[in-house]
Amino acid sequence: MTAEILSVGTELLLGNIVDTNAAFLSQELAGLGVSVFRQTTVGDNYKRLFCAMEAAFDNADVVVISGGLGPTQDDITKAVAAEFFGRKLVLHEESMQRIEERFAKVGWKLPVHVELNAMVPEGAYILPNDNGAAPGVIIEGTGTAIKEKTLILLPGPPHEMKPMFTNYAAPYLRKKSDKVLVSQTLKIIGLGESKVEDMLEDLITAQTNPTIAPYAKVGEVHVRVTASAESEDAGHLLIAPVLTEIRSRLGINIYSDDDCSLAEVVVRLLQEKNLTIAVAESCTGGLVMSDFVSVAGCSSVVLEGLCTYSNAAKIARLGIDAQMLREHGAVSSQVAAAMAENVAKTSSATVGISTTGVAGPGGGTPDKPVGLVYIGLYMDGKSEAIKINMLGTRNEMRTRTVKMAMDLLRRRLV
Amino acid sequence: MTAEILSVGTELLLGNIVDTNAAFLSQELAGLGVSVFRQTTVGDNYKRLFCAMEAAFDNADVVVISGGLGPTQDDITKAVAAEFFGRKLVLHEESMQRIEERFAKVGWKLPVHVELNAMVPEGAYILPNDNGAAPGVIIEGTGTAIKEKTLILLPGPPHEMKPMFTNYAAPYLRKKSDKVLVSQTLKIIGLGESKVEDMLEDLITAQTNPTIAPYAKVGEVHVRVTASAESEDAGHLLIAPVLTEIRSRLGINIYSDDDCSLAEVVVRLLQEKNLTIAVAESCTGGLVMSDFVSVAGCSSVVLEGLCTYSNAAKIARLGIDAQMLREHGAVSSQVAAAMAENVAKTSSATVGISTTGVAGPGGGTPDKPVGLVYIGLYMDGKSEAIKINMLGTRNEMRTRTVKMAMDLLRRRLV
Repeated sequence: MTAEILSVGTELLLGNIVDTNAAFLSQELAGLGVSVFRQTTVGDNYKRLFCAMEAAFDNADVVVISGGLGPTQDDITKAVAAEFFGRKLVLHEESMQRIEERFAKVGWKLPVHVELNAMVPEGAYILPNDNGAAPGVIIEGTGTAIKEKTLILLPGPPHEMKPMFTNYAAPYLRKKSDKVLVSQTLKIIGLGESKVEDMLEDLITAQTNPTIAPYAKVGEVHVRVTASAESEDAGHLLIAPVLTEIRSRLGINIYSDDDCSLAEVVVRLLQEKNLTIAVAESCTGGLVMSDFVSVAGCSSVVLEGLCTYSNAAKIARLGIDAQMLREHGAVSSQVAAAMAENVAKTSSATVGISTTGVAGPGGGTPDKPVGLVYIGLYMDGKSEAIKINMLGTRNEMRTRTVKMAMDLLRRRLV
Repeated sequence: MTAEILSVGTELLLGNIVDTNAAFLSQELAGLGVSVFRQTTVGDNYKRLFCAMEAAFDNADVVVISGGLGPTQDDITKAVAAEFFGRKLVLHEESMQRIEERFAKVGWKLPVHVELNAMVPEGAYILPNDNGAAPGVIIEGTGTAIKEKTLILLPGPPHEMKPMFTNYAAPYLRKKSDKVLVSQTLKIIGLGESKVEDMLEDLITAQTNPTIAPYAKVGEVHVRVTASAESEDAGHLLIAPVLTEIRSRLGINIYSDDDCSLAEVVVRLLQEKNLTIAVAESCTGGLVMSDFVSVAGCSSVVLEGLCTYSNAAKIARLGIDAQMLREHGAVSSQVAAAMAENVAKTSSATVGISTTGVAGPGGGTPDKPVGLVYIGLYMDGKSEAIKINMLGTRNEMRTRTVKMAMDLLRRRLV
């Protein structure tokens, strides 16, 4: 089964928003064994959308469109689809009722033209919208030219579109598809993309089914192994030996094989070992802590975080020796190690982690250039610090520092 | 002048990466007065890319392609372009030299096939790549069918593509274009999108040139006013009265008209008033602080941030009264106000801000449901707390809380 994806919205053509729907839909369709050949974005323009729909159906069995289902004059997708399939637009009573209930619940008046949300091409399957007003629809073509052609219309806002696709459109497509794609992603940190490719080169060159694809992410690399098979079980049997081989080559550099974030992995390791942690940050200014706090349930191990941005705060909150600060500077291995040790001790945590560095753009010196970062770690009663020189913008460097601090912690914990 | 944008890469069709290039290019082209009619994404497939290029030139004077300029077998864009324009691929000596120097500088060996990066269609203008290996090219059509047609090829990685477009491709297009688009964005917080639309409805309905477009963002709304004119100056004259009218209607809810972030605005206000700030966070766990620290030069006003995630930390670090915690709970207006006051006093800052809430998914009670958040503020020797009930995922709520804390601070400072 082949598909094309259309995104509709003048705001996309003006570049005012980034289209995350196309990537989401592509990934989901790939997981259902549906090959996507093209993604196209057009504005809120009747004729252009009609032509794009026609061009998409030239190539594909299924066309998935997101955007333009609402009640305003700009929302033309359902009208174009109705013309394309030779249907009338009719009111879907059940959707109208849901909309009325939604508004009643929060005590809002029904806006003018709200009923346009519930107008759908006659004979379409309805995909309920659990997070907004306009329902989605699936139209199956009848008549020679468009028989076997299926059009899926989804709302544009990602928080409405994504659950609607997952809960209602995906099960529909799963029934139509004759094969499944099974894939698993290994997340790697501490090796660059080209290093990973080198280490897996023979496997990547020899790949047919499963396929092996490395992707560079900020500060890490993901390797996705994907098999096409008759069933989920058969797919898992195909990818298992490839995963084993990659694991044996990349070893401890793989931090997750089940879509966990680095922070989740670290929180889990701390929980397993009954450890607690406190964080002292300078250049990352709260990002390490907020990465921890993004993990639901982290409060069992994460005690507190201190952003001691100024030297005064380092002295007053953390008891860093003023003379050490004068002698070595705030960006030094001595201060990084002391920050980690002192934040742990003063918060009664068993582990302490710290960051201090020159994130720029100002503040660099020949001795301590922009991009110089120290990460301190206190664990098992011992403190250490690692030194890193990095490139990038202020915020890229901060993000990379968070990753490296989490990874240092992970390597010491496993 | 009209344009179409093509993004090339199988990883885009698989949904492994989100295409941010198309949005960037659309926005930049709009700013140059170039109308974008369509964005298309195709895989690393010779025939499909050729067809897509042909279809794009059917509509557009200029086609901008990103992706596929590298040296691997997947990188086919330059070959397709060369065939389309009837040119040979030739080695661009100067680019080759730049690549050799680049590798020499970091002491790396030249990889196999590295010279493929420097192969370009004969007679093309070269766009230097200051952040990577493969240069971009501009090809101007000759001969009847493709005369007046211009193809711009850019690398796929955004950190190579964006500066190349801005520094080399945009000046080229600016010379070709006969009009400019001038636009300015007002950033609004504290009013929902539909409220903003209501307040500006007559202006939006009557718009021709300039146009007025509201965009919903997480926790805020942006209104973009855009005029098409003969010159920059003429464009600014057109948008000025519209901006004035919008400003008079939306008043203090507008936090920026010069593309500043909310944190930048707050840091600037604190600097102007010679104030210093300290942050005490619970549910946002470092995000308020890291928002501050994302502003370069914030160290003159931001003294420190404490993520007192546990009750023990609230007592030990901030001196929050244990009885207050027992009586009212950590998520209460009393504790929020005390956190703000105590973090300011113990760090000798003039202003303190705090957050405490139930971010979920667990931890909610009938009394204190998931989504209940208090923001505390201490300023001019007085403390206060505001209560908010919000919806969304754990991380959406945390992000919204940061915005609302920053906005509370902004409103008290202006």
